[in-house]
Amino acid sequence: MSIYKITLAYDGTKYSGWQRQKNTSLTIQQILEEKLTKINKSYVLAISAGRTDAGVHAKEQIVHYELDVDIPEARMPFALNSLLPRDIICKDAKIVDSEFHSRYDAQGKFYRYRLSNNKFPSVFTRNYVYNIRSKLDFEKIKEAAPLLVGTHDFASFQNSGSDIYDTVRTLKKIEINKVNDEYRFDIKGNGFLYNMVRIVMGTFIEIGQGKMKLESLSEILESKDRRKAGFTAPAKGLTLMKVYY
Amino acid sequence: MSIYKITLAYDGTKYSGWQRQKNTSLTIQQILEEKLTKINKSYVLAISAGRTDAGVHAKEQIVHYELDVDIPEARMPFALNSLLPRDIICKDAKIVDSEFHSRYDAQGKFYRYRLSNNKFPSVFTRNYVYNIRSKLDFEKIKEAAPLLVGTHDFASFQNSGSDIYDTVRTLKKIEINKVNDEYRFDIKGNGFLYNMVRIVMGTFIEIGQGKMKLESLSEILESKDRRKAGFTAPAKGLTLMKVYY
Repeated sequence: MSIYKITLAYDGTKYSGWQRQKNTSLTIQQILEEKLTKINKSYVLAISAGRTDAGVHAKEQIVHYELDVDIPEARMPFALNSLLPRDIICKDAKIVDSEFHSRYDAQGKFYRYRLSNNKFPSVFTRNYVYNIRSKLDFEKIKEAAPLLVGTHDFASFQNSGSDIYDTVRTLKKIEINKVNDEYRFDIKGNGFLYNMVRIVMGTFIEIGQGKMKLESLSEILESKDRRKAGFTAPAKGLTLMKVYY
Repeated sequence: MSIYKITLAYDGTKYSGWQRQKNTSLTIQQILEEKLTKINKSYVLAISAGRTDAGVHAKEQIVHYELDVDIPEARMPFALNSLLPRDIICKDAKIVDSEFHSRYDAQGKFYRYRLSNNKFPSVFTRNYVYNIRSKLDFEKIKEAAPLLVGTHDFASFQNSGSDIYDTVRTLKKIEINKVNDEYRFDIKGNGFLYNMVRIVMGTFIEIGQGKMKLESLSEILESKDRRKAGFTAPAKGLTLMKVYY
C-alpha cells in the first residue's frame, strides 16, 4: 500500500474540468480514477492540488492517490499513460509518505493566461490562447498589473459557486511577457478564489480596451462587489503551470 | 469576376489532406470549395500551391480561385472565416491578375518539421510535434543535413503514388533550431517530391539513432532506390510554412 504523488499534464479542451460529476460529463478526475481503478482492481480516489474548470489546461497539476497494488514509482507513468487518452499525460510519479496531501500541502500556484491581439486567432493555438480582435493597450495593462500584486481581499474577483468566506489572498507576482505574437500573463499566488485568474484577466482586458480606468482598480478591490470587476475571461487561455509545496 | 489569391492556415489533424476525394473523407479543398460555392452561388474550383498530405499542417498555404460575385479583397477573409471551421483560417486575400496560378507560379517552398526527444510527448503540441523516446544524437543529424543541401536526384526520397519522372530537386537550406524542448527543421527548396520532407526526416532520425551512417547518405542518393532511405516520418510533425513566388 503506497501513496503516489504524480505530475499530470492535460489539454482541458474536451473536458468538463477536473472534478468528478454525477451527470455524464467527462472530467479528468473521472478518467484518471477509472484507469487507476483498473490498475488497482478496486476503487481509487484521486485528489488534485486544484480543481481546474471546464476548458482549463494543466502543465503540471499535482495529484495524489493510494494504491493497494505495488507499482514501482518509475513504472507508474508508463502504466498510466498506456491507459490514458492522448490529451492527459502522467509526466512523473513519486511514492510519498502517508502524510502528503496534494491540496492541503500546496503553498502556492503558478497560472499562465495566454492572450493574443490579432485579426484572426492562430489555428495551432486556438484552444490555448484567447484572441481578442479589438486593439488592446498593453502599456496600460502593464501599469495595472502591479496594483493587484500583494495581499488583498479579492472578493470582487470571485464568482459565486464556491463556499469560501475568507477572500483574502496574496498575489506574489504578475509577469507579462510577449512571446512571438502572444502575451503571457504569469500569475503566482498563495491561493486563488473561484475563477479569480479569469476575472483578473477580464479586468485587465477591459482596462486595455479603455472600458475601465486604472484608477478604478483600488475601488473595485474595496467594493468587494463582483459586478465592479471585469468579465470572466474564457477558460481556454488558462493553464495551471505549477504547484508549489 | 475576379481572381483571388488567399493565404490559408490549417490544422491538418482532422483532415485527409488538401485534395478533394471521391469517397467521403474530409479534405481542406472540399471544405473551402463548399464555402466558396456558397458565397459565389455556383461551383468554385480552389487550387493550392501544394497538395499537403493527410495530417500535414499549413501556416501559409497559398490558394487561388475565381469568383463571379464581387467581394472587396479586405472583406474576403471575414466572409470566409465566418463559414470555415475553427481549424481552417483565411489570413489574407488579394485580388490578382488573371495570369496568376498558385501552383505553377510558385518558385519554392518552406517546410518545417517539428521533432522532440522526450520521455513523453507534450499534450499541447501532440498533433504538431513528433516525439521520439529513444535517444537521438542531434550532433550527427546536424552533420547529415548539409549533405542533402544542393541539387540532387532525390528519387530515393520519393514514395510511389506520384507520376513525376524528373526527380532532380534543389534543397536550398536545412536549418535546425532548438526551441525549448523541440527541434525545428526548417527546410527550403525549389520543389519537393511526394513525401520527400518526411523521408528526409525519417533518414535523419535513423542517423540520429545510429541505425544509419552519415557516409551512406551519398550512397542513398546515388542508388535512386526508395528502400535505401529512412522511414517516412509521421505527417503530424510537418507544416507548410511559406510559398515563395
